[in-house]
Amino acid sequence: MFDSMSNDGNNLAAAIVTTIRDVVGEGDKVLHEPVFRGNEWACLKECLDSGYVSSVGEFVSRFEEALQDYTGAAHAIAVVNGTEALHMALLLAGVEPNDEVLVPALSFIATANAVTYCGAVPHFVDSEGESLGIDAEKLRDYLASIARQQNGICLNRHTGRVIRALVPMHVFGHMCDMDALLAVAEEYGLVVVEDAAEALGSFRDGSHAGTRGLFGILSFNGNKILTTGGGGAILTNNATLATKARHLTTTAKLPHPWRYRHDAVGYNCRMPNINAALGYAQLEQLPVFVENKRKLFARYHDAFSSMPDVKILQEPAGCHSNYWLQTLMLAPDQAGQQETLLEYAQDQGLKLRPAWELLNHQTPYSDMPSMPTDVAEALQQRLINLPSGADLGGDHV
Amino acid sequence: MFDSMSNDGNNLAAAIVTTIRDVVGEGDKVLHEPVFRGNEWACLKECLDSGYVSSVGEFVSRFEEALQDYTGAAHAIAVVNGTEALHMALLLAGVEPNDEVLVPALSFIATANAVTYCGAVPHFVDSEGESLGIDAEKLRDYLASIARQQNGICLNRHTGRVIRALVPMHVFGHMCDMDALLAVAEEYGLVVVEDAAEALGSFRDGSHAGTRGLFGILSFNGNKILTTGGGGAILTNNATLATKARHLTTTAKLPHPWRYRHDAVGYNCRMPNINAALGYAQLEQLPVFVENKRKLFARYHDAFSSMPDVKILQEPAGCHSNYWLQTLMLAPDQAGQQETLLEYAQDQGLKLRPAWELLNHQTPYSDMPSMPTDVAEALQQRLINLPSGADLGGDHV
Ligand SMILES: Cc1ncc(COP(=O)(O)O)c(C=O)c1O
Ligand SMILES: Cc1ncc(COP(=O)(O)O)c(C=O)c1O
Repeated sequence: MFDSMSNDGNNLAAAIVTTIRDVVGEGDKVLHEPVFRGNEWACLKECLDSGYVSSVGEFVSRFEEALQDYTGAAHAIAVVNGTEALHMALLLAGVEPNDEVLVPALSFIATANAVTYCGAVPHFVDSEGESLGIDAEKLRDYLASIARQQNGICLNRHTGRVIRALVPMHVFGHMCDMDALLAVAEEYGLVVVEDAAEALGSFRDGSHAGTRGLFGILSFNGNKILTTGGGGAILTNNATLATKARHLTTTAKLPHPWRYRHDAVGYNCRMPNINAALGYAQLEQLPVFVENKRKLFARYHDAFSSMPDVKILQEPAGCHSNYWLQTLMLAPDQAGQQETLLEYAQDQGLKLRPAWELLNHQTPYSDMPSMPTDVAEALQQRLINLPSGADLGGDHV
Repeated sequence: MFDSMSNDGNNLAAAIVTTIRDVVGEGDKVLHEPVFRGNEWACLKECLDSGYVSSVGEFVSRFEEALQDYTGAAHAIAVVNGTEALHMALLLAGVEPNDEVLVPALSFIATANAVTYCGAVPHFVDSEGESLGIDAEKLRDYLASIARQQNGICLNRHTGRVIRALVPMHVFGHMCDMDALLAVAEEYGLVVVEDAAEALGSFRDGSHAGTRGLFGILSFNGNKILTTGGGGAILTNNATLATKARHLTTTAKLPHPWRYRHDAVGYNCRMPNINAALGYAQLEQLPVFVENKRKLFARYHDAFSSMPDVKILQEPAGCHSNYWLQTLMLAPDQAGQQETLLEYAQDQGLKLRPAWELLNHQTPYSDMPSMPTDVAEALQQRLINLPSGADLGGDHV
C-alpha cells in the first residue's frame, strides 16, 4: 500500500533489503532456483536404463499426459523450449510472413522473437496494472483507430499488413483478463496464442493458463516453476492442430517403416526423452511448488504490509496464481529508486531483477509498430522481482 | 565387388539377410542403438546434484572443451540439435533471405530445412560415388555454366540471386573430398559450412570432419554415434565467430547483472547442462565406439566379399571414417531389388534403410533450383544401410 510518508532512496533500499532478509534469511539468494526433491533421479535412471534418451521415448508421452491432466488441455506436445513452442504455435495458428502479431511490450524478448521467426512483424501493445498483462480496453480503442476489417481479416490501415494474431502473456505467473482479451480478438478476427511460459500452475476462473486461446505455450527452462533442463510445451484443445503440431515438430516426416519422405518444411524440436524424464518427476511435485510459492507470497505480503512506499503484487481477482516470481511494486513517486535498490541489494548478496526493458525499446524492435505504452513504461520502472525459489516458501526455511 | 553372375530378387534378398545374420546374430536388429557403458549415470547424478540442469552449467563447458580436444576445432558451441546448429552456422556465415545455398540432393532434409529457416533457397547439387558427397568437378562445371561473379559475389544468372554458401555433407560418416570442394568454393567466393552431423569421429588427411569450412556442425541425436538425447554443436576455428555464436544462441542478451537488453533477434538454443552431462560421458567412449564400428565394417566387408551383386561401402582414400552407418551398395543392375530386400529384411526382424529420398524430389523442395542429379538418383536406388550400433562390433557379440 502506498501512502504519502516516504523514505529517501538509500533508506528505502536498506529497509527493503532488511524486510526481504526477514523472509528469506541470510546468505546469497538468487532470483530462482529449481528444487529436486522427488523422483528425478529414479526417472533419469529408468530413462537411461531403457536405452531411449532421444525423441522416441515413453517419458515424453507420460510427461505430455501428465501435463494434460494437470492443465486440462486436451493435448500437450512437449518440445525443446518455450521459444520454439511459441514459434510452432504461431505457425500452426496461420501466422504468415509479413503478417503483424500483437504482442505486449512488457515481456521477455522471446515473445517477439517467435513472431520474427515466422517472418511476421511484432506490433507492441500496452499493459494494465492489475495483472501486468495486455490492457483489453486500450487494445480495443487502439484497433478501432488503426484497423479495418475485410472479409473477416483485420488489416492495419497504416501499414496495409494483416493483423493476424494476439499473444497475451501471463506475467510472472499472474493471468491476464482472458475473457476481455478473447472478446476483443473475436471482434477483430484475431487468433489467440497464449504465452503462458511463466504460468504453469496458474488458473483464472478455473481455467489453466494457456488453455483458452487456440494454442497456449509453457516453458520448463531452468528458471521456471519446474524444469526439464530446457523445454517447453504446446497446449491446444483442437485435435487436428495437435496432430499437425506433432508432425511439424518432427521434421514433417510421413509415417513409413523405411522411406524418408517429408511433406513440408518441418522442424526438429520435440523434447528428448531424458528431459521429459526429469519433467515427469518435477511435475509430480508441482502442487507442492505452487503451495510453497503461495506461502512465500504471503510472507512477503505480510512483511511489506507496513512499508508505505512499496507493495507486493497480488494475484488478480478470480486468479489462483503460481506466484512464479514474487514482485515488489515501488510507489509511483519512488520509481527513481529502482536502480539504487538493485545495486544495493546486489552488494548485499540478493539478486533482485527489474522487469525486462520494454520490447518496443529494444534494438531489434525499436522500428516496429507500437501503440503508446505509457502504462508499461511506468510499470517497468516500478517492478522488482524478489528471490522466489519454491524452497524459500517451504517449511525447512 | 560386382561381377556378372547375379541372383534373382528373392534369392538375392535371402542371401543378403543370411549374410547380415552371420555378422549381427539372431533376434530383432534396429538400424542403430546408443550404448551407455561409461560414466553416464555418474555424470547425470553429478549434474542433478549440482542443481544446474539448464543452460548455465559446468558440463556444457566440459563437453565443449572435450569436443574441441577431440576434433581439433578451436571452438565448439553445444546447442539443442544438429538442425539448429546448421541454422545458426548459416546465419553467422552471412546467409541472408533470398540467397541461394548449394546443398547436396542426397542428404537428410534438415540440411535443406536449415537453409529455408534463414529465408534462403536451397539449390541442389549432385554427388559422386566414392564418398557419396558433393561432386566437386561437376559442381565447378555447373557453376561455370550458371553463375557469374561480381565484386567477389557469386550470382545465379538464371534467378539473379546471390549464391552465398556451399554445404558439403559427410554421408554416413564418410568424408567428402574437402580439398576439391574448398577449391571450388574459393574460385566462386562461396562460404563453406560443413554438415558433419553424421561424422563425429571421422578424419580425412588428419583433419576432423567439420573443421575445414568456416563452420562445421555435429549432431548428437539418439541415432548418432554418440547421443545427448537431442543435441548438436557448432565448430569453428574463428574466435570472433565463436563469440558471436555464443551470443546469438543465448537470445543475444548483452551482459549485465540485471538488465535485460538484447542487441539482435537471438535464439534460445544452447544445450541444457543435463544433456551435456550425458554427452560428456558418451564422448569419453567415442574412441571405443569408432573402433567397434570399424570392426563391424570389417566383418560386413568380409562377409559380403564373395557376393557378386553387392559391395560394402568403404572409406574413401585418405579417410579414417567413423562408419556411423554401415552401407551396402547394390550392383547397378540390381537397383530394382532395393524394395524387395527392405521388405524381406523387415519381415525377418532386420530394420534396414534406404538412403533418403532425394531432396529435390521432396514435396517442399521440388520447385527449388537443382542441377541434374543423375548420380545421386542412381545411388539412392542402390544404397541400403545395415544394422550399425557400436555394440554390434564389440567383443561381446
Ligand atoms: C514470457 C516468456 N515467453 C517465452 C519464454 C521462452 O521460454 P524458453 O526460455 O523455454 O525458450 C520465456 C522464458 O524464458 C518467457 O518468460
Ligand atoms: C545430414 C544431417 N544433417 C542434419 C541433421 C540434423 O541433426 P539433428 O537431428 O540433431 O537436428 C542430421 C541428423 O538427423 C543429418 O543426418
